[in-house]
Amino acid sequence: MNAPLNLTTPSDLTHILHQEIPLTRAMGLVASSWDGQTVALTAPLEPNLNHTDTAFGGSISSIAVLAGYCLLFLIFKDRGLSTRILVQKSAIDFLLPIEAEFSATATCPAPAELEEFLGTLKRKRRARIELSTEVVSGHMVAARHKGLYVAMVY
Amino acid sequence: MNAPLNLTTPSDLTHILHQEIPLTRAMGLVASSWDGQTVALTAPLEPNLNHTDTAFGGSISSIAVLAGYCLLFLIFKDRGLSTRILVQKSAIDFLLPIEAEFSATATCPAPAELEEFLGTLKRKRRARIELSTEVVSGHMVAARHKGLYVAMVY
Repeated sequence: MNAPLNLTTPSDLTHILHQEIPLTRAMGLVASSWDGQTVALTAPLEPNLNHTDTAFGGSISSIAVLAGYCLLFLIFKDRGLSTRILVQKSAIDFLLPIEAEFSATATCPAPAELEEFLGTLKRKRRARIELSTEVVSGHMVAARHKGLYVAMVY
Repeated sequence: MNAPLNLTTPSDLTHILHQEIPLTRAMGLVASSWDGQTVALTAPLEPNLNHTDTAFGGSISSIAVLAGYCLLFLIFKDRGLSTRILVQKSAIDFLLPIEAEFSATATCPAPAELEEFLGTLKRKRRARIELSTEVVSGHMVAARHKGLYVAMVY
């Protein structure tokens, strides 16, 4: 935690997502911001439409799962850690229909929780963490997501 | 329930999904079977890969949400009912990594539960139902999903 962070840029993250997870290209998904604390991913409506001309629940789940995944990826990458991250559980409440571009944000856990997670990972080479993400469209929270992620050092 | 059912074919359902939800085309998703009781959707691995060369969690969530959605769509369509269906909650446990083609199946609720749901829909023009779906790859259950869906008569 005391080492200086070397922040990944949003365009680098977008490139990595498009290379590693082809469906993100089909979704038009881009990383819109990362400040060392909060990552935001954004997607346009059109490639993610459903049968009611609002955003498809699968696209909303996908961007929400990815926001949590990207947060962990960035936390590790910016600290120079080589870690495999997988999602184990995902639960989402769809609160409002989405009729425009939408974004998912995930924010770093509080320092004590993050330190505990990184400490467990260092000791046991494997640690789990629950992350909450929000999906927002037009300043309204349209969905709330909780994901349980496991990280493994390799 | 006593009217004869006019079963939609899997290829008709695939066509509807590809028309209405463009991301299903990007996923390579097709409806593989519908017998009036159980619907199965199938997707190839390649367009749904993640960074570890297994299926992306967002794709697995998407196919699972869609299996429940399609089951309701088919129940209504085959009975000639015009109903809007939306997903309100989605929760999934990822049990195993998926390394090949994968399918999601959803099965009609027991007759009494289905009758109660259809009765509520008729009386109140709106009804909710929880549906479980399974995602299988290579004969192994790789994910279990629960979705809460709302149907509205229009």
